[in-house]
Amino acid sequence: MGEFELIQKHFLPLAGSVSNGALVLGPGDDCAIQRIPAGHDLVFSIDTMVEGIHFPASYPPEYLAWRALAAAASDLAAMGAAPACFTLALTLPAADDDWLTGFARGLADASHIFRLALAGGDTTRGPLSLSVQVHGTVAEGRGLRRSGARAGDLICVSGTLGDAGAALDYLEEAQPTDDMAQVLERYHHPSPRLELGESLSGLATAAIDISDGLMADLGHILEASGAGATIDQALIPLSPALSRLKGARAVDYALHAGDDYELCVTVPEAIWQVASDAIRSQMTVIGTVNQDAGLHIKDSPGHTDRPTTGFDHFRSKA
Amino acid sequence: MGEFELIQKHFLPLAGSVSNGALVLGPGDDCAIQRIPAGHDLVFSIDTMVEGIHFPASYPPEYLAWRALAAAASDLAAMGAAPACFTLALTLPAADDDWLTGFARGLADASHIFRLALAGGDTTRGPLSLSVQVHGTVAEGRGLRRSGARAGDLICVSGTLGDAGAALDYLEEAQPTDDMAQVLERYHHPSPRLELGESLSGLATAAIDISDGLMADLGHILEASGAGATIDQALIPLSPALSRLKGARAVDYALHAGDDYELCVTVPEAIWQVASDAIRSQMTVIGTVNQDAGLHIKDSPGHTDRPTTGFDHFRSKA
Repeated sequence: MGEFELIQKHFLPLAGSVSNGALVLGPGDDCAIQRIPAGHDLVFSIDTMVEGIHFPASYPPEYLAWRALAAAASDLAAMGAAPACFTLALTLPAADDDWLTGFARGLADASHIFRLALAGGDTTRGPLSLSVQVHGTVAEGRGLRRSGARAGDLICVSGTLGDAGAALDYLEEAQPTDDMAQVLERYHHPSPRLELGESLSGLATAAIDISDGLMADLGHILEASGAGATIDQALIPLSPALSRLKGARAVDYALHAGDDYELCVTVPEAIWQVASDAIRSQMTVIGTVNQDAGLHIKDSPGHTDRPTTGFDHFRSKA
Repeated sequence: MGEFELIQKHFLPLAGSVSNGALVLGPGDDCAIQRIPAGHDLVFSIDTMVEGIHFPASYPPEYLAWRALAAAASDLAAMGAAPACFTLALTLPAADDDWLTGFARGLADASHIFRLALAGGDTTRGPLSLSVQVHGTVAEGRGLRRSGARAGDLICVSGTLGDAGAALDYLEEAQPTDDMAQVLERYHHPSPRLELGESLSGLATAAIDISDGLMADLGHILEASGAGATIDQALIPLSPALSRLKGARAVDYALHAGDDYELCVTVPEAIWQVASDAIRSQMTVIGTVNQDAGLHIKDSPGHTDRPTTGFDHFRSKA
């Protein structure tokens, strides 16, 4: 079997396996065709992962596929968009049947869970890297942006933060403890907050997904909104596993480490008070937007200013 | 200036520089937002180029940017779609100011000529490669596919074929002749047939762009349509420069070499007879679709069957 046929064998079964009505024409022609529901806009984002930069060498292909689709889908969640479809640009040193089997399995799992239909792609030879572009839809004018935060808004984050960053310390662990296994699972199988994001459309004033760390990503909201913020370090949600593993340093992972793919949003207090239980149960209020420039962290016992730069690994959303 | 700032400096000026009304929200947020005109569908395709595979090492960045956008835009032309916007996933070994200056210039030129607005992207560190995804729109049901060719349809190609393939022989030429310069220009600055493609929407029964060579790409139409074809080798349009450079071998470049980004379409004879002068003047009839399987080349003085495989360089449109 030639390389072309090998790739076809693994990817063609994915075409059409997610039926969400988005695609008029799927893989196999010069272009794919997507129909956007009336009164809705297309929402889209592209993300690249390079071996040795965004994932370790010899990283299991199932995890790689899942993480790449999850990272891209998380940008849809941050816009409040409903998932539709994705394209995959995959560059491989060689067409290896075992590797492709694992990769296709991870991609199939993620595309079903995230309700993203494979629309097309391009597979080329070269050093291992992949770019995923995700497409979603949102009612006209309802996309959540980074720029809408206003003084007085509450700052809320979903889930718990820092686990995926801490997992980097345990990737080589031969016999991980239960706590290590829990944070490793957060790194290998992140869950983008797609449903939560959709439910926040029309409620949140600004939103971003936490891919580069809370400080960096909240900093992007504040910069885009021309606002400042104070957050209370003691309120930042941490998993019990992370707290046990890292003790007093756990909060530093939550503040500065990336790859969690939780949401950070700003919500007017009056709206937060009447938000559904589903929303309130998934989110924690950690601070308030204010008019002063800068991001202040209320530490116990006093106030400390921390830098707002996260780990940026030469990434630029153009 | 840091790497992030350097990249921002070069790419941010491109945002908003093409005003075609496609983008509700451009670069800088978690996602971009595109509005699709009522009664139209989104048409999109992603293409990757890797250094050493799709372009030579140390290839001038202006040419690289142009070729990457042209190759992707050519897929829109093959669908009969109107261009709208694009995303760029760029992986670079280092953020070099000179290189980025040239690349941004080529990208700006191409985006203006092809009327494609920069919607977003992702820049990462790694071995040089880039993926471009282009977006266009087409009236619902009017997208040109590969699968509609029917027995009796005429096979037409745009422009002249083989120049870009022949140019590969002269890339290292220190003092190219005028003829060499002409074919080199076809390689460095391909012109996707966007307007011609749009004008063929509703007229052609099938279409593809010639990126892998006439034989391979016409083969894709025939395979998707369940048809065969006979083409007349003497009718294949060749540039005078290619004929002078390659003599009797010129037609082999036209048949088998890629990178021309011309269109190959099938059109019912009755429609061809009444097609506009603008269409007829840009295209040449080279053969006919028939019911027999296979692609036959009428050679002088007899008939020869040639293989239908082009140079595929481990590329797979999934």
